[in-house]
Amino acid sequence: MEINSLEMPSIKQVVIRRMDGVSISEFSDILSVEEPLEIKIAYDAGINRTQKNISVTMRTPGNDQELAAGFLFTEGIISSKDDIKIISHTNNTVMVELTEGFIPFLVQSDRNFYTTSSCGVCGKDSIQSIRTVNAFCHLDKPQLNLSTDLLFQLPDKLREAQRGFAASGGLHATGLFSLDGSLLLLREDVGRHNALDKLIGSALFEGLMPLNQHILLLSGRASFELIQKAAMAGISIVAAIGAPSSLAVELAKEFDMTLLGFLKENRFNIYNAGQINFK
Amino acid sequence: MEINSLEMPSIKQVVIRRMDGVSISEFSDILSVEEPLEIKIAYDAGINRTQKNISVTMRTPGNDQELAAGFLFTEGIISSKDDIKIISHTNNTVMVELTEGFIPFLVQSDRNFYTTSSCGVCGKDSIQSIRTVNAFCHLDKPQLNLSTDLLFQLPDKLREAQRGFAASGGLHATGLFSLDGSLLLLREDVGRHNALDKLIGSALFEGLMPLNQHILLLSGRASFELIQKAAMAGISIVAAIGAPSSLAVELAKEFDMTLLGFLKENRFNIYNAGQINFK
Repeated sequence: MEINSLEMPSIKQVVIRRMDGVSISEFSDILSVEEPLEIKIAYDAGINRTQKNISVTMRTPGNDQELAAGFLFTEGIISSKDDIKIISHTNNTVMVELTEGFIPFLVQSDRNFYTTSSCGVCGKDSIQSIRTVNAFCHLDKPQLNLSTDLLFQLPDKLREAQRGFAASGGLHATGLFSLDGSLLLLREDVGRHNALDKLIGSALFEGLMPLNQHILLLSGRASFELIQKAAMAGISIVAAIGAPSSLAVELAKEFDMTLLGFLKENRFNIYNAGQINFK
Repeated sequence: MEINSLEMPSIKQVVIRRMDGVSISEFSDILSVEEPLEIKIAYDAGINRTQKNISVTMRTPGNDQELAAGFLFTEGIISSKDDIKIISHTNNTVMVELTEGFIPFLVQSDRNFYTTSSCGVCGKDSIQSIRTVNAFCHLDKPQLNLSTDLLFQLPDKLREAQRGFAASGGLHATGLFSLDGSLLLLREDVGRHNALDKLIGSALFEGLMPLNQHILLLSGRASFELIQKAAMAGISIVAAIGAPSSLAVELAKEFDMTLLGFLKENRFNIYNAGQINFK
């Protein structure tokens, strides 16, 4: 796999005015950059090479190839880094050249694919259809005793690493930890789904898949979409610093995924225990 | 306009376990419900009545007709409540029957429409195309002195009103205030764009459009998409409790919209002053 890159800045310095009580002053502020990223693929359709626009997402520039690869992976369009031949990146477009002869699973690439089942996301059918494209759903999940002290320390480790990672603050962060609590990967973005796609894309590039011996930490709330993406990567333990939604909890139960919420330095809520005992 | 409704609950009570230090206990928790909402329209295409699926959004149930109408309005598909004949709502689908003879502006309904310009959202062309469909862009903006004390009080007013509004907490909120600081409308959702669409849909139903004599308060960060939706409703003063993104600031400048960020009880940042003097 070949990666051609041209990175854009992820932060932007601006001079603004700050109103503080009754006084106003000039102030140099740092904004998180938000820009559209267009993800395109080129692939073999019959005897012809075809291009297709897959998605546009509003993202913070940086790790854009990971974002594109992670998105294609979590949407089920590709299932291995070997499916990618070349990723080329120019400003706000990533072109992913798929390997000759590889047929992308484009039926899943309709962002609204979950509407094709009769009862929407919440129905058995659509959850089944997600399972179908999840290559890792039959993996053994670690059945282990997990130390609560180890879990309590994760949010601080994430915040500590974030301090060195981005200057603007206020971005959504996603961290991948080993089962002994070491931070392996951290990605940030204005969009929480992008932060997770970047992280999964990075794990794909580094040959870490599947992520069934890891803990995923989300800096905010856990939505359906994040649980779905985590499941695609084989992740079986997800902890969120915020609350999960109702559908996130339902999906975690469907996948037998461990889902913790409101993780703080001395407590967490167990929305689904999965295969984990807490000690 | 006729509204047929069948509401789903917006919160869900679940029994979970809470790990607190070393002790574990059962606990009754309240989750924000997240469910997909499918928005469909029926309209006249030539001599035939045609149906079209417009969007699926993951939303918190409640005010779904407002969400559908607000979405159609902020996407430029409709421009008045008179364009709607009947809104019918069943579980996770809203069908918006458009008025006979009304031609919806569907060229804008492609969620990726901003990619059709050569340089993405950030380019002049696409911002111009947003302006074109914004019926209110040539409205006079209020040129006034706005009291900083009035602004400092808005976040507390929003939080106070939220306490009575939803039991689960943790949702994104959007508030519409009059220029004298009275809260007129409050909407919440798991998705910040949905909270704003609900609020704009409600304002549409109540005949409040355009909202050029109002202040919009966002409970979190201000993204490009939120500024775009606000502009579509004629809103000229936006304050966010969180940070704006780079593109949100650029768009506010394009629209001559007042954009404040990090609004707290004694300070705020002025990202674009627009026509407002602060006193």
